Amino acid sequence: MAKRWSTPAAESLRVGPGFDFAAFDTAATPGWEGSRKKAESLTAENGEEMSELQERLYAHGRTGGTRSVLLVLQGMDTSGKGGIVRHVMGMVDPQGVQLKSFGKPTPEELSHHYLWRIRNALPVPGRIGVFDRSHYEDVLVVRVNELVPPDVWEPRYEEINAFERELVDAGTVVIKAAMLISKDEQAARLRERLERPDKHWKYNPGDIDEREKWDAYQEAYQAVFDRTSTEHAPWYAIPADNKWFARLAVAELVLESLEGLDLDWPAADFDPAAELARLERS
Amino acid sequence: MAKRWSTPAAESLRVGPGFDFAAFDTAATPGWEGSRKKAESLTAENGEEMSELQERLYAHGRTGGTRSVLLVLQGMDTSGKGGIVRHVMGMVDPQGVQLKSFGKPTPEELSHHYLWRIRNALPVPGRIGVFDRSHYEDVLVVRVNELVPPDVWEPRYEEINAFERELVDAGTVVIKAAMLISKDEQAARLRERLERPDKHWKYNPGDIDEREKWDAYQEAYQAVFDRTSTEHAPWYAIPADNKWFARLAVAELVLESLEGLDLDWPAADFDPAAELARLERS
Repeated sequence: MAKRWSTPAAESLRVGPGFDFAAFDTAATPGWEGSRKKAESLTAENGEEMSELQERLYAHGRTGGTRSVLLVLQGMDTSGKGGIVRHVMGMVDPQGVQLKSFGKPTPEELSHHYLWRIRNALPVPGRIGVFDRSHYEDVLVVRVNELVPPDVWEPRYEEINAFERELVDAGTVVIKAAMLISKDEQAARLRERLERPDKHWKYNPGDIDEREKWDAYQEAYQAVFDRTSTEHAPWYAIPADNKWFARLAVAELVLESLEGLDLDWPAADFDPAAELARLERS
Repeated sequence: MAKRWSTPAAESLRVGPGFDFAAFDTAATPGWEGSRKKAESLTAENGEEMSELQERLYAHGRTGGTRSVLLVLQGMDTSGKGGIVRHVMGMVDPQGVQLKSFGKPTPEELSHHYLWRIRNALPVPGRIGVFDRSHYEDVLVVRVNELVPPDVWEPRYEEINAFERELVDAGTVVIKAAMLISKDEQAARLRERLERPDKHWKYNPGDIDEREKWDAYQEAYQAVFDRTSTEHAPWYAIPADNKWFARLAVAELVLESLEGLDLDWPAADFDPAAELARLERS
């Protein structure tokens, strides 16, 4: 596989101590030395490897294994979360992917603890779960819009860390990808949705209300990075102004996680020779 | 689009009155005059068209529309249901596909009416639902294995017709694809699962128990075709010994259904010019 990473994605994109979101370049391609064309062809190659490893993970889940993967996608409107689902996770057998999109909570969801709907959507063993938005909304949109008072959202960071610790201990690899675009790039993408009738359905006037709180969101994201990029479930900051780079980066992170599971094909719990003999008689 | 169908798939594969399953050629390619290579390239082209139309369907669902599609896949073990999900539905944005695989009912499912778990898994408006096995198990495996007495399964055919009528009236296009292989082809595929360690996990000794009831299954499928291939929800008999043909055939059926919905992009429920002005100020 022709790699053009000078530094593995998991290393170059990882949010560590001292990460400064205000100084982050959303148009950069950290760790990647190749062209856009090379990136696209590596993304496709990664897709084939992901497919093969996903099938092993699935087989493992079907035979009593406990491992799973959870990809958490967060980002402002138009940051490309849906594109990751379509173009990256779309390369993998749909039977192996468990996708959940979190919108405004329903009355039923609001009547429960905020992690209730999250727990209900966790990937079963053998699957790659994908969250389009997640429990982080409960310290992002909720904090920015003051939907609950600070003494309610404040303890959530620690609670989320403990929750994710629990997931990891149970066998789930948690990949948290923050899709980060500049305010100008968001304007360009919203403009496109407004100018093209075939994109109107993707536009919501509320998108501009949220855009007007850009600085408050930057601050809320900084708090998320500072307080929830843990050893067991680190954040990856994905510069997403270039869709091709964001897709390559997420494909790399998912592939590296699958490789890290180091799964073999499960051993048969039956006698293949005896079954072959039964088959020939049937 | 270079077509090589002498007769549209929906016509050449449709199960009509007098359909005789015992005389059905599972290695045929009814209506298709092209090569395997042409079939594979047309399947890929269909994937692109399905993708475009699926996005319209999704947009329609997001803006108050009621239409959806439900693809029901039935067939004996190894008939290629999973391959259809992977290779045909895998060509479409995973966000637009709602996949459900029905196994042996859980105790909770058994405590409800047999259609309960089916109703819970129906596609929401705007989605393409895919059932890997379905309510037809309740007149196939249940009938063959006498899991309930005849006076319980006997009324189910009419009940299923009424249920599907209800779905169609609510806006769902129901495509029922029976993946049909010969007994010899099943032996070859089971043999491969037994001979290749990377396929062992797909094998279950119970597969041979079911295989030994081949004739009873043929009879149960014939009853399904005779009694539930209705005007509103016809069956399509897919000769599935050739995987490439089965995939092309199902891709064609799904594409034709999407085309039949004749959906435009939804109109904006906001004023694009006013929103563009708001955007420029933001």
